[in-house]
Order: sequence, then C-alpha cells, then structure tokens
Amino acid sequence: HLLLGCDTNLKTLTLDTLNPQVKAVEYAVRGPIVIKAGEIERYLEEGGTKPFSEVIKANIGDAHAMGQQPITFLRQVVALCTFPELMDSPSFPEDAKWRARRILQGCGGHSLGSYSASPGVECIRKDIAAYIEQRDEGVPSDWENIYLTTGASDGIMTILRLLVSGKDSSRTGVMIPIPQYPLYSAAISEMDAVQVNYYLDEDNCWALDINELYRAYQAAKLHCQPRVICIINPGNPTGQVQSKKCIEEVLHFAYEENLFVMSDEVYQDNVYTPDCQFHSFKKVLYEMGPEYFNSVELASFHSTSKGYTGECGFRGGYMEVINMDPEVKAQMVKLLSVRLCPPLAGQAAMDVIVNPPQPDEHSYKQFRQEKSSVLGALADKAKLTEQILNAVPGIKCNPVQGAMYAFPRIFIPPKAVEEAKALGMQPDMFYCLRLLEETGICVVPGSGFGQKDGTYHFRMTILPSIEKLKVLLGKVRDFHIRFLKEYSALE
Amino acid sequence: HLLLGCDTNLKTLTLDTLNPQVKAVEYAVRGPIVIKAGEIERYLEEGGTKPFSEVIKANIGDAHAMGQQPITFLRQVVALCTFPELMDSPSFPEDAKWRARRILQGCGGHSLGSYSASPGVECIRKDIAAYIEQRDEGVPSDWENIYLTTGASDGIMTILRLLVSGKDSSRTGVMIPIPQYPLYSAAISEMDAVQVNYYLDEDNCWALDINELYRAYQAAKLHCQPRVICIINPGNPTGQVQSKKCIEEVLHFAYEENLFVMSDEVYQDNVYTPDCQFHSFKKVLYEMGPEYFNSVELASFHSTSKGYTGECGFRGGYMEVINMDPEVKAQMVKLLSVRLCPPLAGQAAMDVIVNPPQPDEHSYKQFRQEKSSVLGALADKAKLTEQILNAVPGIKCNPVQGAMYAFPRIFIPPKAVEEAKALGMQPDMFYCLRLLEETGICVVPGSGFGQKDGTYHFRMTILPSIEKLKVLLGKVRDFHIRFLKEYSALE
Ligand SMILES: Cc1ncc(COP(=O)(O)O)c(C=O)c1O
Ligand SMILES: Cc1ncc(COP(=O)(O)O)c(C=O)c1O
Repeated sequence: HLLLGCDTNLKTLTLDTLNPQVKAVEYAVRGPIVIKAGEIERYLEEGGTKPFSEVIKANIGDAHAMGQQPITFLRQVVALCTFPELMDSPSFPEDAKWRARRILQGCGGHSLGSYSASPGVECIRKDIAAYIEQRDEGVPSDWENIYLTTGASDGIMTILRLLVSGKDSSRTGVMIPIPQYPLYSAAISEMDAVQVNYYLDEDNCWALDINELYRAYQAAKLHCQPRVICIINPGNPTGQVQSKKCIEEVLHFAYEENLFVMSDEVYQDNVYTPDCQFHSFKKVLYEMGPEYFNSVELASFHSTSKGYTGECGFRGGYMEVINMDPEVKAQMVKLLSVRLCPPLAGQAAMDVIVNPPQPDEHSYKQFRQEKSSVLGALADKAKLTEQILNAVPGIKCNPVQGAMYAFPRIFIPPKAVEEAKALGMQPDMFYCLRLLEETGICVVPGSGFGQKDGTYHFRMTILPSIEKLKVLLGKVRDFHIRFLKEYSALE
Repeated sequence: HLLLGCDTNLKTLTLDTLNPQVKAVEYAVRGPIVIKAGEIERYLEEGGTKPFSEVIKANIGDAHAMGQQPITFLRQVVALCTFPELMDSPSFPEDAKWRARRILQGCGGHSLGSYSASPGVECIRKDIAAYIEQRDEGVPSDWENIYLTTGASDGIMTILRLLVSGKDSSRTGVMIPIPQYPLYSAAISEMDAVQVNYYLDEDNCWALDINELYRAYQAAKLHCQPRVICIINPGNPTGQVQSKKCIEEVLHFAYEENLFVMSDEVYQDNVYTPDCQFHSFKKVLYEMGPEYFNSVELASFHSTSKGYTGECGFRGGYMEVINMDPEVKAQMVKLLSVRLCPPLAGQAAMDVIVNPPQPDEHSYKQFRQEKSSVLGALADKAKLTEQILNAVPGIKCNPVQGAMYAFPRIFIPPKAVEEAKALGMQPDMFYCLRLLEETGICVVPGSGFGQKDGTYHFRMTILPSIEKLKVLLGKVRDFHIRFLKEYSALE
C-alpha cells in the first residue's frame, strides 16, 4: 500500500471490512435522537439559546438519572461490602451489616475484589432461589439453576448465543414481540439469526394474541427454524401486563412447537393498575402440570436496573434456567467462565433486592416507606401520562399497566409523512426530531422498537418527577397540536 | 414428539443443536482441574481426609482470593460514591471525598445507579487520557479514544467482534502468542475466526521472535486472511516483559502487513526485575514517527483486576483505540450501547487507579506504602518461585519478569506420557491432576495455554502469601521428584 503514498483509505478496519453483522445492528434507545439531544444540551450549556431552557430526557429507563433516590438499605449493604471497616460504624444498622458480612463470607478472601465463581456467589444464588420460591408461592427453585449476570442484557445475550449459530444451514428463528426492546433485534442481527416478529395487539392494550403467534410461526417456518420465543412481561415499550391465561397459551404453544422460552421479567415489580397482576412464566408453567413443568426449557431474567431500585449502573441481574440439558448447562458455564464473572457490587445489590429487610428488622420501616414511595409515584405518573396523552387529538395511548414507558400512537398527517420520506427519514423519527428541536423533549421514535406498517408511535419513560412530567406532557400536547395544524394547513 | 411418550431426549437445546462455536470453546483456567479442586475442598470441609489439609489454589490471577488486602484509598472512594452520606463522615479523608464528588458529578442524577454513556463517564475518560499521557511521557492521548469496559475481557471481545465475521468467505486470522491467555483462543472459537499461532521463544525467556511472526503470518495466509495481531505484555502465562526493540519490530510488522494491533497491557504495573521496564505499544509507536503513529490501528487494554490493586470483582477496565476509522468507531459505540454501559463501581475504581493520591495529598503516604508493599511482595515471590523451581531436577523455569505467573517446563517421563494417553488425557493434565490429588495444589496444565508439541508445562500464580508459596513450592518439588522416580522406575 505504500505505492499509493496515502494511508487514509488503507485502514485494516473500515466500514467495508467491518463485521457485517455489527453493521446490521440497530439500537434506537441511544440512537441519532439521543446524540442530537446531547448536542443541544452542550449548546445550551455553552450559552446558546433555544425556545426552551433544558433538554428533558425521556428516552431511557434510567430512574436515577431522572432524580430517583437510591434505596438507602441497598446502598448501605453495598457500601459495607466495599469498605468493611464500616462494620464498626454505629451509623450503619445491624441488619445491613449482617447481610454484608454474609455476602463477604461468600467471596474469595472475603473481598468484593475477588472474581466470584462464574455463575455468581453461592449464597446469593441461594437467596435468589428462596426469593423465587416465595414470589411463586412455593413453586420449587433450585439455586443451581440461578446464574448471576451483568445486567439482564448479559443473560439474554448468553442464552441467545447458545441457541444461535451464525453458520446454521437451517437458520435459527427467534420470535420476538413487535414492538420490542431493541436489545433483542440487535442481538439477533449481531448473531445473524432470523428475527421472527409477532405483533402485539394495540387495539387490545398490547395483549399477546395466540393466533398471531401461530401465524408468525407458520410463516417463519418457510424460511428458517424457529427455536426460541422471547416475551417481555411487563412489556417494554408497551407497558402491558400479561394475563395468566395468555401466558398459559404461550407456554402451551412453546411446548407444542418445542421452543425454548425466554421470559424477560425485569419489570416484575412494576405493575401499577389494580386489575393487573404479575404472573411469572415459571409459576404458570408449574400450574400447568408436570408434563409441562418438567419439559419446557425456560430462562427468565431479572435485573437490579428496574423495579423500585433502578440501580442500572450496578449492572446486576440474574437468570433462572429450568429444564436445560445438563450437558448444555456445562457448556454454558464454560462460556460464562471466559468472561470470568459478573460484577460483585451488582451481585450484592441483587442480593438485597431478593432479601430485603423483614418486618422484624430495624431497617424495615424506612425500606418499606422508600419502596412504596417510588412505586406509588410511578403508578401516579403512569395514570397521569395516559390521561394527558389521550386528551390530545391525534394521540392514542393504551393504559400503562406496568414497566416504565408509554408508547402512544400518534397521527402524522400525510404531508408530514411525505416531507419525512423526502428527507430519507422515518416519519416518526422526523416527528421526534422536531419535538426535540422545538421543545427540548427527547423521546424515541416507534420505528426503533418496531410497529405495524403505517402506524407511528414514540416511546417516553414515565420517570421524570411529577412536576417535570407535567411540563413534558404539556409540551408534547402543544407541539402535537401545532404539528397537526402545520401539516394539515398545507393540504 | 408426543408419539414417543418420552420427553427426555426431545429438548430444543442439546449438545447436538447447541451453537457449535460455543462447543468449540476451551477455557482451562476454570476447567476440569479447578472443578476437581472444588470437589476436594468440599470433601475436606465435610470431614473427608486426604494427604493434605487444604487445597491451595494457584490457578487463577485473583489476588484478593489469595488474601491480598485492597488499597484503602480505592475502596474509600468507591464506598463514598456508593453511599454519599459518608461525605459527612470525618473518618473519610478529603482527597477521597473530592474524587468521589467529582465522579458523582459525572454520573446521571449524581448516582452510581445511573447508566453512564456507553463509552464510560466522561471525566473518568479524561482522567485516563491524562494518566496515559503522563505514563508515556507526553505522548498525546485523546479522551475520546478511551472506552471504559467491563474488565479487559469485555474490551478484547468487543474489538475482536468488529474484526471477525463468522461468515467471511476469506476467514479472518487472529495472530496470538503461544502460550496465550485462553480468553483469546476462546473468543476466536466463539466467533469462528482462525487462530494463528506464533510461538514465544522459551529458550530466550519467552521473548517474541520477529522471524517467528513472519513465519506464522506467511503460513496462515495460505488458508485465511490474518487481520489482527494480539500481544500480551507483560505476558500471561509466561511472565516475560517485552523489550522496546521487540515492540518496534512487532509494530513495524503490523504496519507492513496492515494488521490491527491489540496490546493487552493489563500487567503494566507488574514488572519485577530491575533489568526490565514496561514500554507501552502506544509510546513505542509514537517514537517510530508520524508515519507509524498516524496509521497503525492500535487498541490497548487495561484493567482494575491486576497491578497492585487486584480488584477483579469490580470488572473495571478500559481500552484506548487509536487510528480507528471514525465510521467504524461510530459502529463500535453503537455495539457498546446495546449492552448499555460498564459497571459504574468498576469505572470509579479505574478512576482511582489512574488518578491516585499525589505527594501533597493526605492519603499519599498510606497509599504509597500499601502499593509498594504489594508490589514488593510480588517481586520477592517472583524471584523465590523461579529459584525454588529451578532447583528441582526436571523442572526449568524462566525468570518471572512481570505479570503474576510462573510457567515452568516440566519433564514428564515417557512412561507417564503413555499412561496419560491411555487415559485419553494430555500428559500435563495427568500431571496436574496427580499433583492436585496428592498435594492439594491446584495449577493449570500448559496445554490449556498452548505449548510447543512435546513440551509440558504448568501455570501457577505467585499470589499466595510468601509462607503459603514456600509450602506450595516445597510440595511441588517433592511431588515432582516422586513422580520422576515412580515413572522412571517403571522403565
Ligand atoms: C425489557 C428489558 N430487558 C432487559 C433490559 C436490560 O436491562 P439491564 O441490562 O440494565 O438489566 C431492559 C432495560 O431497559 C429492558 O427494558
Ligand atoms: C492477559 C490478560 N488479559 C485480560 C485479562 C482479563 O482480565 P479482566 O477481564 O478481569 O480485566 C486477564 C485476566 O487474567 C489476563 O491475564
């Protein structure tokens, strides 16, 4: 290459030589809108002016970033584990201290600085199994089926990695809901699996329709081998909570078609409407009887990032894997070993979540108060968001039954659709960019999650404080009315 | 499948349907020997008897697990970040407090519980760049080239993922040293790249021989396209420290052959022999002039896990990536975004490592004392290990110039080789299993790292306390002599 006398185009790694599966990955939650939002923020900081004074980020499910305070007890335990000299400090309660001592007892050299076994610290795995048994009203949970992960993301990637070989002659199909959390589509692209979409029913509060599942499966079988079905419950971005009957149907379907089930249950503590209840896939499977419970391969995922703790930065999580072939399990443990272990502080945080203060413990009162204050506020904001959005002409929002998001459908006038297309942009991307530039509100276009052709949505979190959320929703309303007027006037 | 009336063999995911690339992965550091060691430990705990009273684990570079104490200042900063109420505590020094405040200032909602930007917290990236500039005596470092990672493992996987497509018609060759740290071979298997071995020169203190590099490259070109060269300096498992001249040769070779360079420098603070010095690949590249410095694509990796801190459980680390095509960089950031971010406590720990107490700060004296005590002990143990091993007939050990391991060559008598082969076992696996069962010492067979055909080694860490290390080495000596006698007597 020296002959050319110019090095700039001679890199080893260019867009042309980059792994094409990486190129194929899309990830909207931190995509162009968010980059633009960062630019505007910097511009404002440097004294620039806009028709608004701050960017409100409602693009990502990051509670602390929106001002939510950590649960004191959780942080006390992790701080004690981090700096055990604090065990002598009278300002830390005994119940936090004994938990920290117990966790450290399970760590190599009694230090958070040791690698743990790759599946996680043994006593934490046991606490998680006990928690699951209690949550599921006695359905047995074996601690050796529990694997700590680096956030739920890591667990999801691990299970998919086992199932998907990019080199399959009969390519692996992965069934995912549409709309979906884009980790799934990104992982599918990266691993070169086939994305098999089943559409949630917007007209029925985003419920999962079993007929649609069969349709998607049959259609997919023509060009790939569907081997796994992913369910997100409560849903992201859609906020629905699945009924027990619906979960039964999904599990029956998986049983019949011999599919591996991945149930993403990171929002299991985020259920707001009184008529809804969280049912774990594991428990429902158990109740379907031993024929099901002893055969359906199921991995379910949880995380420190959501719920009432919102500890995203800890990168804690776990998965429970049942009915996995023991030889495959050994292979999975080998795969986990290569990356050594999940972060110990995240493991400790997970332990507190599954083993919170009990009524007879000193920290119980404060813990309960903090927990219900977070969950109560989220429930209020869920309701408020739905109400305000539904009062806007041209916006229709299903109830936010759970999780942390609203995913309203927005009417975009044909003229605006045309203008977006002329710019080579998805219409809802166009809409969200305008919203950002005119109001400082950062939300993610529905196209980043998938939606029925010809429908448009955006996803916003309900995480801002109630005051900020009201401002945000008011601005969305005003913007939307302006937008409709502008593009209808053009017709 | 109901026709068969039996579910047990009808799993979706079996060894037959498992992603074959996962099956191909090997990872010895936590392989069969370590599993066996765990079994023996449990057996002893339960009151079983063996010719020894405890298992000594010298299989993994996990300092805290072997009793090394954390650096107080690092833990103070992380504890303050975790539980900011401690900012009011008089028992924490001001220099730790201001660092913690600065880190929290860079976190969303000033909380360690927020996701950071995917490349890491901005002020930590800046601190790392400043550290690199100082380490490399003024060679410029751009903070936007710094990416925090979940341990160095994660960074290494990320860069390889960009370079390797499992679907390449011309398959991607990845050059790695033999012996190597088995993360590399595992990643290569998982991604279905072609492993291109270049052998380190055992007779020359495990130096990298440039002619061997050319040989390996030319041979590989016949069946794949070598695109990247990995170097581990100081070496794991081999403990050598590369000379500046040798690094220059490697970089020149990479420049000529247009290879991406991955320099694994996680042991940059672990250099023990006075005649050796750590030279970063980046600095050497700079000194070779702008033609090199502005063109060779280089990623270098660091970690909180090694050095004098040994904070493995924090899963902290970073990579500096230079000369990467800006479009590829954008793709990499997208890929990192999918997994959201590295753990915040690990990022904070990394920040302390690159920004330790300064001479004018309160914590300096204690910090310096703790740091030099760890590094001094490691240097003593490196020397001791080499000396004792070399005094054993049939064992030959190169000097442990750096890192945390000795990789002695062991003579295994032909009769023992035969017996191992009859058992379907690598001879050094057979040796290490016998060592474990007879002495309780857990080391990893050389075959797990790669070695020249017909040579045998094991890897042991130098991390046990000096007392334990002496016991360990004495037992290895006695075992080896017994072993030689047993199998020579048979001849
Ligand atoms: C449905 C769902 N699954 C998984 C995750 C991953 O979360 P984490 O990796 O932080 O646990 C998220 C995060 O937003 C999510 O919404
Ligand atoms: C050479 C080398 N690189 C990378 C790593 C990965 O370390 P971590 O992921 O803990 O930073 C190790 C760990 O032993 C190593 O020895």
